[in-house]
Amino acid sequence: MTLAAPRLPAHLDDLRIDVSRLVARLDALAEVGPIPGGGSSRLALTDEDRAGRDLVVTWMRDLGLEVGVDVIGNVFGVRGGRIDVPPVLTGSHIDTVASGGRFDGNLGVLAGLEVLELLAEHDVVTDRPIGVAFFTNEEGARFSPDMMGSLVHVGGMPVEDALDTVGIDGTTVGAELERIGYRGALPCPGPAPHAFVELHIEQGPVLEAAGTTLGAVEGVQGISWQELTVRGQSNHAGTTPIHLRRDAGLVVAETAAFVRRMAVELDGDQVGTVGRIELEPNLVNVVAHTARCTIDLRNTDESVLQEAERRVREFAEACASRQGCTVAWRPLARFEPVDFDPTIVAMVEDEARSLGHTVQRLPSGAGHDAQMLARVCPTAMVFTPSRDGVSHNPAEFTDAADLRAGADVLLRCLLRLATVSEETSRWLET
Amino acid sequence: MTLAAPRLPAHLDDLRIDVSRLVARLDALAEVGPIPGGGSSRLALTDEDRAGRDLVVTWMRDLGLEVGVDVIGNVFGVRGGRIDVPPVLTGSHIDTVASGGRFDGNLGVLAGLEVLELLAEHDVVTDRPIGVAFFTNEEGARFSPDMMGSLVHVGGMPVEDALDTVGIDGTTVGAELERIGYRGALPCPGPAPHAFVELHIEQGPVLEAAGTTLGAVEGVQGISWQELTVRGQSNHAGTTPIHLRRDAGLVVAETAAFVRRMAVELDGDQVGTVGRIELEPNLVNVVAHTARCTIDLRNTDESVLQEAERRVREFAEACASRQGCTVAWRPLARFEPVDFDPTIVAMVEDEARSLGHTVQRLPSGAGHDAQMLARVCPTAMVFTPSRDGVSHNPAEFTDAADLRAGADVLLRCLLRLATVSEETSRWLET
Repeated sequence: MTLAAPRLPAHLDDLRIDVSRLVARLDALAEVGPIPGGGSSRLALTDEDRAGRDLVVTWMRDLGLEVGVDVIGNVFGVRGGRIDVPPVLTGSHIDTVASGGRFDGNLGVLAGLEVLELLAEHDVVTDRPIGVAFFTNEEGARFSPDMMGSLVHVGGMPVEDALDTVGIDGTTVGAELERIGYRGALPCPGPAPHAFVELHIEQGPVLEAAGTTLGAVEGVQGISWQELTVRGQSNHAGTTPIHLRRDAGLVVAETAAFVRRMAVELDGDQVGTVGRIELEPNLVNVVAHTARCTIDLRNTDESVLQEAERRVREFAEACASRQGCTVAWRPLARFEPVDFDPTIVAMVEDEARSLGHTVQRLPSGAGHDAQMLARVCPTAMVFTPSRDGVSHNPAEFTDAADLRAGADVLLRCLLRLATVSEETSRWLET
Repeated sequence: MTLAAPRLPAHLDDLRIDVSRLVARLDALAEVGPIPGGGSSRLALTDEDRAGRDLVVTWMRDLGLEVGVDVIGNVFGVRGGRIDVPPVLTGSHIDTVASGGRFDGNLGVLAGLEVLELLAEHDVVTDRPIGVAFFTNEEGARFSPDMMGSLVHVGGMPVEDALDTVGIDGTTVGAELERIGYRGALPCPGPAPHAFVELHIEQGPVLEAAGTTLGAVEGVQGISWQELTVRGQSNHAGTTPIHLRRDAGLVVAETAAFVRRMAVELDGDQVGTVGRIELEPNLVNVVAHTARCTIDLRNTDESVLQEAERRVREFAEACASRQGCTVAWRPLARFEPVDFDPTIVAMVEDEARSLGHTVQRLPSGAGHDAQMLARVCPTAMVFTPSRDGVSHNPAEFTDAADLRAGADVLLRCLLRLATVSEETSRWLET
């Protein structure tokens, strides 16, 4: 079924968000769990996360939204519409990594609030309700997996399993939700929204490098995370001739170099990263008996991603075999690529252009709550540029003009998606 | 000047060391600072090292040796000869790494004691004195550099600098020598012995792989240790296209792979090892902004070693440049190759064969006190096989038959080197 894409009602064409109000909220939220450099530390379900949640919920209530919390702690603030139907939803997350910036996640939630404040200010009544959500534990920095709240919301993980998840500090999601008062009553899986649009910083350098203001996100790259452990033999770096070595470190180094070569060879958006390497005993004069690395492969095309996985595996195994080493693989994460709804992607492009902004289509290289929502409703995302591509860092920055552009496009998409044609309206009201 | 190589006096031809007495001393010393698996932990100048020193000095005194300690804590036990001339010296070290085996170093010292006990038992009077030494801090596991005692003894490092050396635990060599009572009175640099022969385990797999009982060590490989630090940019592994990356980890991985390729390409004994790799931030989904590795290069030929250093440097710099990264080099250690005295090397071979043992010439890949003594007197080494090439580990093992073979060859070389021809004798006694 193709999503209807009604036009923006003409009387709303001049509505523009108030970027100073948006920035003020971003600043205020950044002051919760502040860290040097202007960032925040609000690991999921900590006292800092609670304080951040309390602040955003206060804003939701101040805006007269109907606030609901589900059993995994996802919070929904909904502004009613003319018709009692599932809302158009926006939002993101407000948890951060240990040294987070002030935009990642927060922007999507607070831009949603700004949109709803603007609508209230102008007494705009939309046909469908519009809601803003923040989802629990998107970052996964304290509890694994990441995007947990949105995953549970769409039925991708049993809520009991999520609640039992043990974090890096030995606590459980369930106990921490109770403790901070965010184990809500709404059931999971929850009802599907009419559509979902998430505004987020790019967290990468593509828009900045191209000089483009906005991204219309076509989908999310599939992700394959594996840990490779190579076992060989520890030997003296001086006394062991090369041909008698079983150097586990060499196999990992060769594999890391291969991952890059392969990513360049494969077409399109393939990326590959070996970001973690550990040798044992890790001494200057000892051949490593054990070497571990992680391999992060991403592609928007599942078949190419599988091909990349196969090639890396074959290479590492052949290399290990030549070196007299053995390999073991441990899957760390695997998500298939997600395609966003083409109607909303086109809508993002159209609205960006209608406002005079440059825009380009691109995939998301990072995971986002939107990819979970895409399982249950038409979904897309809007990206704003990240200075130097930096995120997960207090230096994360997007300038106010770009924030404004992104929030205005979000506003217009939400308004269009919340508009019901007369015919549909008659059908819905029957 | 070529060293004289007198024949073994005929009446001593049937002398054989008592391997059970040698093994009993190895066992007793291993019980000082014992660790699980049968090894020892006697880091230089710790209480355990003191206890080990005290035990060996007791044995020296029980054998009637004249015991002297120099200012850097090297201990010499000398059995007088017919003529009052510099002694033929043997020995090694009794300090260990944190998880040491029972043979590394200890064998050379205790085999020397066994030789002197045998000579006393048979009332053998040698022309020259024969001494057994153990040198301070050969391992370098607590204080850097390694082979410190023998280096200071031969004048390669000012004794004041050595005494001021600060260890991994913040102590100094001088204070620890005082504390354990081994800051002696003999000056450094000390007098040169007539010759030096060290018996040691191979610490590598060459003899075992060849099925050879003994090694006649021709010299010590030159050693080049460098630390390479590559700096690039931290980036999100999903959102950063390959062409916009500055991946420091990739440069280190490529360099590690190059080090191996180059070692294979270069002729002869070249070895190259990247045993330590560290990435920052070392996370699965982040391109490393900093990567460090060590590069251990060794060769018996100084010119080839320099060529290897040059090639590695050029490769890493070109690779870093292609990746938009910068490199910094830190020299960690550099020793030129050492050639042992050809007369003693041939003597080791001859005596091994005369006893019916298989023997092969080989270089030492590890550093030894003998390479320091080689600066001041004719020097060589005898190697016994190491099971699986393992050392610096409680699993270090050489079987009793090989210990016996090595100690018998040591005995015969010391006896030959301590023998003075009639003509020389007349000249010396003038």
